[in-house]
Amino acid sequence: MEGENNMKTVAYLGPKGSFTEVAAKALLPNETHIPFRSIPDCMDAVNEDAVDRAIVPLENAIEGSVNITLDYLIHHQRMEMAAEVTAPIFQNLMTNKKHADDWKEIDAVYSHPQAIAQCHQFLRNYIPNAEIRYTNSTAEAAKFVSESEEKIAALANETSASEYGLAIVKSKVNDYKNNSTRFIALQKGSLNKSFEQMDGVSLYKTTIMVTLPLDYTGALHQVLSAFAWRKINLSKIESRPMKTGLGNYFFIIDIDMKKDEVLIPGVQEELKALGCKVEVLGSYPCFQWEALCALQNK
Amino acid sequence: MEGENNMKTVAYLGPKGSFTEVAAKALLPNETHIPFRSIPDCMDAVNEDAVDRAIVPLENAIEGSVNITLDYLIHHQRMEMAAEVTAPIFQNLMTNKKHADDWKEIDAVYSHPQAIAQCHQFLRNYIPNAEIRYTNSTAEAAKFVSESEEKIAALANETSASEYGLAIVKSKVNDYKNNSTRFIALQKGSLNKSFEQMDGVSLYKTTIMVTLPLDYTGALHQVLSAFAWRKINLSKIESRPMKTGLGNYFFIIDIDMKKDEVLIPGVQEELKALGCKVEVLGSYPCFQWEALCALQNK
Repeated sequence: MEGENNMKTVAYLGPKGSFTEVAAKALLPNETHIPFRSIPDCMDAVNEDAVDRAIVPLENAIEGSVNITLDYLIHHQRMEMAAEVTAPIFQNLMTNKKHADDWKEIDAVYSHPQAIAQCHQFLRNYIPNAEIRYTNSTAEAAKFVSESEEKIAALANETSASEYGLAIVKSKVNDYKNNSTRFIALQKGSLNKSFEQMDGVSLYKTTIMVTLPLDYTGALHQVLSAFAWRKINLSKIESRPMKTGLGNYFFIIDIDMKKDEVLIPGVQEELKALGCKVEVLGSYPCFQWEALCALQNK
Repeated sequence: MEGENNMKTVAYLGPKGSFTEVAAKALLPNETHIPFRSIPDCMDAVNEDAVDRAIVPLENAIEGSVNITLDYLIHHQRMEMAAEVTAPIFQNLMTNKKHADDWKEIDAVYSHPQAIAQCHQFLRNYIPNAEIRYTNSTAEAAKFVSESEEKIAALANETSASEYGLAIVKSKVNDYKNNSTRFIALQKGSLNKSFEQMDGVSLYKTTIMVTLPLDYTGALHQVLSAFAWRKINLSKIESRPMKTGLGNYFFIIDIDMKKDEVLIPGVQEELKALGCKVEVLGSYPCFQWEALCALQNK
């Protein structure tokens, strides 16, 4: 079915109006978008062939990696990282319209833990007495507020405010304005590589997972040597727990190039010779937000 | 007031019955323990001299770093890391006694996001239809369940079950049994160093923060070289976002030794010569759980 371009389905972290839905629609505007309740549910749906792909958040510029995505991918549901898109993130405080004028007297703020963390200073400065209540997503918070009679607010994006008929009482309230999130498209390896034929690609990345043989002095230094002498640039290196006890880590390394026939296989061979386990999680195009938006407005 | 050993106060992430309270009481059994609502609140209390120290979680063996602790320490409230204790973590499913027999029919499970993540497989296998609701802490979940008439459950520790009169219906339900959390004592630099006079110290660590001058190829490799040729062992290296945009990171490095007069200053000088910014966040004794428990049972 090479070159096939018929209607496909994509799972995203819902509910409707979430940041992930906005990212999924920017990256894959012509597919059918289906909300799922959690990141693992999105990935399970791909594995069970209920959908063709999943779009999930991977890393936020302020809060760092979305651990559940990496951990579920590594430990439970291995699939291919097939594309990346980085979207700007703005949080807004929103209430039901009847509470819009007295929002400083709200009793509680609902949102996803990462959104709450992103607005920590704002919440302390403006509504220090409001209770903090966590939800599975920012859009779920907006939905909950819209269905409640109580004097409560949600931190969520503009799409959620219009989706659920809420009034934005204070916009762009995230403490750091330069905020964005990397979303990743996950799919089974067998799916055709239509992402590579799309416009708007800014660069390629290859993500690998490296497990060190033993926790010996200088092991990571040796691993990095394999990249350094080849002048291969790494855009990220992150340690994650092996889940076998404190102090046991593996490393996720983002390489700033497409998997080639010479350099990356050379690194892999060298790391294996050092006793490391090396797995390629994906080699994929990265899309710029502005480029995708421009394509859609054409 | 050198050598002073009178009653001091310690802030911990509450409410009563939390894992952090258990850790605080093991490390500092003779101090007054005061619960605070959030990790930043604990650290603010130290800064405002409302308490002498704070005990907060730093890293979980399964879920990785507790980002809010590191980020608040780095970006908002710099203070000294003064001691570390690693405590075993077991999550238990608990309900009000009247619901203990039909726990498989509960409508919702309440807990902290990290505890929910730690029991992900258990929840899917045993109570897949129960809604997931997040709380600020596992103990808060237990407290909430104890005050509710609904058919709900909490994931929390044994101390919480007895503190709030709940029945443990399924014990040790965390997916990975080898679970533990590193807790850290934070204090102002001026406090006397009574931790170093305590029994139960297993080793020393020095934690430093390194900011690379530019995101150039091989920068981290050069940083690690400064440790490798001195045969200094690193127990952890972690990248965290600078909060200035995706791709800008600093590194938190745990060195397996006490800050000395030769090796660590040598590393610092070398890294500064490379254009890095280096800050020592603390050099502190690490306490073994079994040793602390044995001391208290003497």
